[in-house]
Amino acid sequence: MIKQLLLAPGPTPVPARVRAALARPVIHHRTPQFGELFGRTREALRELFGTDGDVLMLSSSGSGAMESAIVNCFAPGDKVVVINGGKFGERWLELAKMYSLEVVEIAVDWGSAVRVEQVEQALKDHPDARGVLVQGSETSTTTCHPIEDIAKLTRERDVLLAVDGITAVGVYDVPMDRWGIDILVTGSQKALMLPPGLACIALSERAWERAKSVCQPRYYFDLARERKSQAGNSTAYTPAISLIFGLEEALSMMKEEGFPQVFARHERNARATRAGVEALGLELLSPNDPSPAATGLYVPEGVDGKKLHGYLRDKMGVAFAGGQGHLKGKIVRLGHLGYIGAFDVITSLSALEMGLRHFGHKVELGRGVGAAQEILMSALPD
Amino acid sequence: MIKQLLLAPGPTPVPARVRAALARPVIHHRTPQFGELFGRTREALRELFGTDGDVLMLSSSGSGAMESAIVNCFAPGDKVVVINGGKFGERWLELAKMYSLEVVEIAVDWGSAVRVEQVEQALKDHPDARGVLVQGSETSTTTCHPIEDIAKLTRERDVLLAVDGITAVGVYDVPMDRWGIDILVTGSQKALMLPPGLACIALSERAWERAKSVCQPRYYFDLARERKSQAGNSTAYTPAISLIFGLEEALSMMKEEGFPQVFARHERNARATRAGVEALGLELLSPNDPSPAATGLYVPEGVDGKKLHGYLRDKMGVAFAGGQGHLKGKIVRLGHLGYIGAFDVITSLSALEMGLRHFGHKVELGRGVGAAQEILMSALPD
Repeated sequence: MIKQLLLAPGPTPVPARVRAALARPVIHHRTPQFGELFGRTREALRELFGTDGDVLMLSSSGSGAMESAIVNCFAPGDKVVVINGGKFGERWLELAKMYSLEVVEIAVDWGSAVRVEQVEQALKDHPDARGVLVQGSETSTTTCHPIEDIAKLTRERDVLLAVDGITAVGVYDVPMDRWGIDILVTGSQKALMLPPGLACIALSERAWERAKSVCQPRYYFDLARERKSQAGNSTAYTPAISLIFGLEEALSMMKEEGFPQVFARHERNARATRAGVEALGLELLSPNDPSPAATGLYVPEGVDGKKLHGYLRDKMGVAFAGGQGHLKGKIVRLGHLGYIGAFDVITSLSALEMGLRHFGHKVELGRGVGAAQEILMSALPD
Repeated sequence: MIKQLLLAPGPTPVPARVRAALARPVIHHRTPQFGELFGRTREALRELFGTDGDVLMLSSSGSGAMESAIVNCFAPGDKVVVINGGKFGERWLELAKMYSLEVVEIAVDWGSAVRVEQVEQALKDHPDARGVLVQGSETSTTTCHPIEDIAKLTRERDVLLAVDGITAVGVYDVPMDRWGIDILVTGSQKALMLPPGLACIALSERAWERAKSVCQPRYYFDLARERKSQAGNSTAYTPAISLIFGLEEALSMMKEEGFPQVFARHERNARATRAGVEALGLELLSPNDPSPAATGLYVPEGVDGKKLHGYLRDKMGVAFAGGQGHLKGKIVRLGHLGYIGAFDVITSLSALEMGLRHFGHKVELGRGVGAAQEILMSALPD
């Protein structure tokens, strides 16, 4: 028996309380009983998103919600600035092109964040831009873009800021209304501690206004239709009922811990992970703008990244994520979002140390772990 | 305590074995472990659909899969014949119009099936028609359209037959390849005995050919992209992992019973339900072309359908479905698809009898139940 541990940047481990909720008998969705559950969940999501507006739940992966952002808020020919610094930046790019938007691409090195000045310059060069599309946390490169500062630029222009917050919402504070984000998306299988299959999206009032004039065919992802249904605690199409049971439970757990404490835990675990990686003399993928959701590191020379990743998963029971796109085989990503405690960080680093040693890389066992412990000690109660 | 019973035409009750599978720890979807699970599930779905082709799994409700059929197989301006005999016929109609298809509508009374001659005439009148869109079982009216006979018309023409099999697949035998169906859709929360959130769709070879030439923007529902990924036992976007755990278990249960036995059980339970309803002197919504998935009946005069439905659900613990569209408040639908045994039929009829008596309708208690028992006796082993 090899005990299986999921330590990837998503899907993330689902707590037993949430799994028990997923196993509840299904109830019919056109009932007051479901309506009450749905209403409570909507309220908790509002709090998490930091918005007075509606947070809609869609039965799809996060990519479906990203598509809904495009087809509801941008018309063919609309010019959008796309921050492309990883696989999910590419996803925005592909979506924008598929729906005939005119794309101004800001290509960013994988592992770096866009600089606010680049966005400002793009908006100056393209005063007719109608939107900026960006990741709150680019999962493929474990990097955060400066959302708050970008929002300062977009909110004073007629430019909608669309944020893929799939590994941002619930990881760090993304107060939508306060910052002035226009479109914020997340998925269930990340900080929300659920299996995949549910996505959430919220729009600002001006994004809803814009949607009224956008002529783009849409049906399953028609957000105005969903908004009308969901305001009455129902959904336009049959919802993923069990995932909503689970979502209520997961949001309860987060509120019991306290959202600020959840964010602080992510920040601390991320810092401890990075300290451990650096103590091992390994190179961080994103040294300057790291995401609190996951930590990417370059596999050292002489070690086959694909083999390392497979060995950790199949022989040691620890499922990290590898690299995507041109980083395939070159990096490992340690997830630390969602239901992750201090000892999951210890496990991650310990597995990394042992895996590297197994493949002949010179590692002082315990050194990365020790560096992480120094940081994790700070959170111990008196 | 009122014991809660779900006896609607979907969502349907989820067996304990399947609920236990839903509660399993999540595994990463980009792993050989997930690939093996996915591959086994693909094989079982092929058997259920009666196809040698690919059955794709999508993380969406059934409506999402219906949309995928439209955007992949029909281009703007394509002429399609839509059989509209209920709320889900209307859904095909809305989808076709949304994506600028030219619609030839065959309006059918709610509770009746289309006659094959009507379809034949429409195809003669419109030799340029590119498709026929129909329900295998129109859930809103508990009616079956004659799919096998319609397929005889379409397969000898360059006309794609798209069947919404959401309450058909797994309820009765819909052998896709043998009949010559081109597009077959189903959803998880019906005969597949799962919570909602997963949809399946299969295309014939000529539908895949057609899809190559169809220029319609699509991303999340791009079936060619999914086909390529799923052939490698992966998915284009993060799949609903837990529902796929559950699906494997549900399909195992169906195969243990035997697909022919599953279909026979549905047919018998449906017949018993109709016998019970008729023995109570109640009028069937679909007397001539009833679906084996559910039985609709008119609420007798003097009884408020909405109140009856709510009372059964909230005070007696039995969740049937009411009517949709213009049938709201006028009918009750008793579901008998999925994880439904003989005594669920007894419960349905007994609850109906008691509910009607409660609202002052003259009912001989036990009469409907007895009529159902006569039929159910036939399945008792020696």
